Amino acid sequence: MSTTRRRGRPAGPASGDTRERILAAAREEFSARGYDRTSVRSIGKAAGVDAALVHHYFGTKEQVFAAAIEVSFAPAQDMPAAMAGGDAGAMGERVARFMLRIWENPQTREPLLAVVRSAVTNDTAAAVLRGLVSRTVLARVAGELRAPDPEFRVQLAAAQLVGIVMLRYVVKVEPIASADPERVVAMIAPALQRYLTDPDVRP
Amino acid sequence: MSTTRRRGRPAGPASGDTRERILAAAREEFSARGYDRTSVRSIGKAAGVDAALVHHYFGTKEQVFAAAIEVSFAPAQDMPAAMAGGDAGAMGERVARFMLRIWENPQTREPLLAVVRSAVTNDTAAAVLRGLVSRTVLARVAGELRAPDPEFRVQLAAAQLVGIVMLRYVVKVEPIASADPERVVAMIAPALQRYLTDPDVRP
Repeated sequence: MSTTRRRGRPAGPASGDTRERILAAAREEFSARGYDRTSVRSIGKAAGVDAALVHHYFGTKEQVFAAAIEVSFAPAQDMPAAMAGGDAGAMGERVARFMLRIWENPQTREPLLAVVRSAVTNDTAAAVLRGLVSRTVLARVAGELRAPDPEFRVQLAAAQLVGIVMLRYVVKVEPIASADPERVVAMIAPALQRYLTDPDVRP
Repeated sequence: MSTTRRRGRPAGPASGDTRERILAAAREEFSARGYDRTSVRSIGKAAGVDAALVHHYFGTKEQVFAAAIEVSFAPAQDMPAAMAGGDAGAMGERVARFMLRIWENPQTREPLLAVVRSAVTNDTAAAVLRGLVSRTVLARVAGELRAPDPEFRVQLAAAQLVGIVMLRYVVKVEPIASADPERVVAMIAPALQRYLTDPDVRP
């Protein structure tokens, strides 16, 4: 997560705390009300500060949202390490297990569900998510691949994972919603392995 | 789509038209405002009828929504036929191509996107979608499979397709958003084929 302040205001002793408090309030607001119904003003109110201070630290509503979802996506930052650590033939399995672990944990799942809700209902939120996901998670994961067309590969694998998230955690359709996580890992790992490493995968 | 009326009101000469007009208005309202912000009253207003008439034809808001999304999902009703028609070894390819065709066409895509938005943001809408998808599309598709655990298989395949929809049509991340549809079909067909027919797939 970037902690660089955007503008030239000198940092007072409590400025770090204030920034964190605004960020926490923004995550709460976006999560509870969605992107459309959240405003810089409502975030300021929830944080107990003036809207101008929200602007000062983060810029526009879009930029506050970007900072907020960066926190929600922080657990995904370890995906490249999870991919790289171990036998290349079991990469699909590690990727699947890593993703399921994040989504099985309510503390990491709920903020991500909130991001999905905002991105699906608002084009600006979708664009911010697209930027973050492309620039950080997908690009870094693609950097771990030795095969050609790594971005396309990673997106095919991401599509498989996102679809599991939708059926299991969002729409909650049975039997996949209650299936043992390790069973789901075993089922999708071969598809992920192929997308990530098979030479025939190309755009 | 079911055309059975829920209550005992005798059908006047224009009752079919009225029902269709309410249904069209409901689809418009749910699509434009989402499930949360649509009411039986707003649907009635959009259709130029009293809210009581909306209740009369469809029941609760939940039941109007169910009728509305059934129309949006009508194109998917031909999936079982698409699966069954041809060589069993190319079933994954046919399923992928059928799904991409529905989503590449704006006339069938936009109503489905509206359903996704409602289901992601509202638990009741998600439950209605879950019921419809389980009962009609997934169950009927599962009925075409000769392999054991057809429901689990179909959901794994559906997850792959839903993920493509999310990355390509909702979040629109590149390069997958602009990839040639037939290329996407070729890439995901083996995974679908495995989910639908491989004996090792089991819950």
